[in-house]
Amino acid sequence: MAPLAMENQITEGEEEIATKYKVTIVGSGNWGSVASKLIASNTLKLNSFHDEVKMWVFEETLPTGEKLTEVINNTNENVKYLPGIKLGKNVVADPDLEHAVKDADMLVFVTPHQFMEGICKRLVGKIKGDVQAISLIKGMEVKAEGPCMISTLISEQLGINCCVLMGANIANEIAVEKFSEATVGYREDKDVAQRWVQLFNTSYFQVSAVQDVEGVELCGTLKNVVAIAAGFVDGMDMGNNTKAAIMRIGLVEMKAFSKLMYSSVKDTTFFESCGVADLITTCLGGRNRKVAEAFARNGGKRSFDELEAEMLQGQKLQGVSTANELYEVLNQRGWHELFPLFTTVHEICIGRLPPSAIVEYSEHPPTPVEDSA
Amino acid sequence: MAPLAMENQITEGEEEIATKYKVTIVGSGNWGSVASKLIASNTLKLNSFHDEVKMWVFEETLPTGEKLTEVINNTNENVKYLPGIKLGKNVVADPDLEHAVKDADMLVFVTPHQFMEGICKRLVGKIKGDVQAISLIKGMEVKAEGPCMISTLISEQLGINCCVLMGANIANEIAVEKFSEATVGYREDKDVAQRWVQLFNTSYFQVSAVQDVEGVELCGTLKNVVAIAAGFVDGMDMGNNTKAAIMRIGLVEMKAFSKLMYSSVKDTTFFESCGVADLITTCLGGRNRKVAEAFARNGGKRSFDELEAEMLQGQKLQGVSTANELYEVLNQRGWHELFPLFTTVHEICIGRLPPSAIVEYSEHPPTPVEDSA
Repeated sequence: MAPLAMENQITEGEEEIATKYKVTIVGSGNWGSVASKLIASNTLKLNSFHDEVKMWVFEETLPTGEKLTEVINNTNENVKYLPGIKLGKNVVADPDLEHAVKDADMLVFVTPHQFMEGICKRLVGKIKGDVQAISLIKGMEVKAEGPCMISTLISEQLGINCCVLMGANIANEIAVEKFSEATVGYREDKDVAQRWVQLFNTSYFQVSAVQDVEGVELCGTLKNVVAIAAGFVDGMDMGNNTKAAIMRIGLVEMKAFSKLMYSSVKDTTFFESCGVADLITTCLGGRNRKVAEAFARNGGKRSFDELEAEMLQGQKLQGVSTANELYEVLNQRGWHELFPLFTTVHEICIGRLPPSAIVEYSEHPPTPVEDSA
Repeated sequence: MAPLAMENQITEGEEEIATKYKVTIVGSGNWGSVASKLIASNTLKLNSFHDEVKMWVFEETLPTGEKLTEVINNTNENVKYLPGIKLGKNVVADPDLEHAVKDADMLVFVTPHQFMEGICKRLVGKIKGDVQAISLIKGMEVKAEGPCMISTLISEQLGINCCVLMGANIANEIAVEKFSEATVGYREDKDVAQRWVQLFNTSYFQVSAVQDVEGVELCGTLKNVVAIAAGFVDGMDMGNNTKAAIMRIGLVEMKAFSKLMYSSVKDTTFFESCGVADLITTCLGGRNRKVAEAFARNGGKRSFDELEAEMLQGQKLQGVSTANELYEVLNQRGWHELFPLFTTVHEICIGRLPPSAIVEYSEHPPTPVEDSA
């Protein structure tokens, strides 16, 4: 499909630029650095992309006194956020955001989600009109009026099309080329989606595309609430059987909630890497599960704030805040009965229910699957 | 819905019997004994069932010289297959198969699958004409002409309707009342399905019904092949990310294969306990996963036969034989490209490929979800 896209461009008569898409990665943390490695290996191989991959780096001075961008450009390694991994000689770190994006045909956003609003403001009028964007950012907020999709924020603020890429993606495992998958969610343009697949796909990182931006992006956030529930089960030593049941109920509630929010959401999205696979990874490992396990082991006597401070060096758990946000939405719409797991997770987090309540569904049974189909 | 079913019966004028369904469990192993505990707790509570639950027990003489049925009836405990768990005073063990089934309105089959053919032969003409059956038996064979469903065997041999009950059901965890779920698959009669749900459902064992016998029963067999793949991943220490990806590809292949075999199979069935939840449990614990892990740790140098003999005291792995049977079906129909995981698992099991091949899909990528939807 990419060749087709190229022809379309060529007719616009800018062959040199048009036939070679320029890629800029906005963000250079752990996942951003792995993304740059994946992308840089493909731009060298594929004719439709410009070899050089720009990576905007929030400049830092390292303990050695060197600038992070200089070290990345000299060593091809992000020594601070992905030490020991070569990103590729064709990755060029740039501390100047506007400069990094101005010639880009394809923008990859992979920053902490709280920075995106400010970054978008800075980029208005500084990017090409026909630029395509993709967001790798998990963890949008779910406000009372509904989820604030980061892909929507980017689209609206910059007036450009924005896809998403989500999946069972533990950055450090992909960095060492362990087999993994990911899902691209796109809105209309299948050619553009295919171009993103080509840019990210490798033999050890298999990417597929689904026409369901909202479903894919919601999975990346809602799964963290299920991981809290899975952590409670682990903390009470209830075994794999109970844990599998709780993960399943969580997956069904993720699907039901997404479909109530966006009628366009597809069931099949939840069979993709962004759905069931990311849920499994997050419920087996992951911070949310780990802290929730500790919470349950302490019988809920030590608060999440206390445990987070102790276990996460000041980081906050996505799952706990998302559960809180979800609860507000369910409240406003009278949906608590439809989402017993989402509801119970929050009530346990705030101490209204004991951790053992996570398996007490006798009064409000799980959403029947046939109804949520 | 059960009251409705009862009225229908009452009009036939056999009120005493009709309003009280008599239940017989055919089988008394580990899972059969747990099933009898679940059922016996409900027949005491619900008016539509006769309190007494008959359980056919393959008679054995215990080391103490006592008969197993006598000990069960004296102690309410299956000391051999579920020691330490009270089945309920209303469970009556009966060593005489024909006697145990002759008055039953509802038959629960839960024996090793290789015994079912012989048991069906013995029951012809010995059961009530309007008896309803359910199979809890996992592990049908997949022959070249297609899967040999155990529910179909029962229906055809005995000329009765047969539902199935499958799910993430580790007997010993349910025996101690840890939260779990199960799925009833039924063909047409929703009232009958509802009656089975009432008979099994408890606060810690949540049962739901789907109109998809084939989909539910196939899940219980195909998941074992995916568990072998998951074990290979564990044996190569590839991490949760890769394991989640392999489990997802396996789930998608389970769904695609079931739908190719039976067009009636529903996507939603795979979101049920029999689908994603049973897959998760089986890939986290379970014999198939465990022996496959050992196989991979030995780099495939020790055969499954050897490892099974060593690790399973002569038991055979369901997953290995099912993978072999599946391979034949894929061969005959030219479907290998559609099922890279099923295909690869068998080729690793027979030593044609190394265990590492389980993550080498670059040449035949996973079945696109949108196509299998």
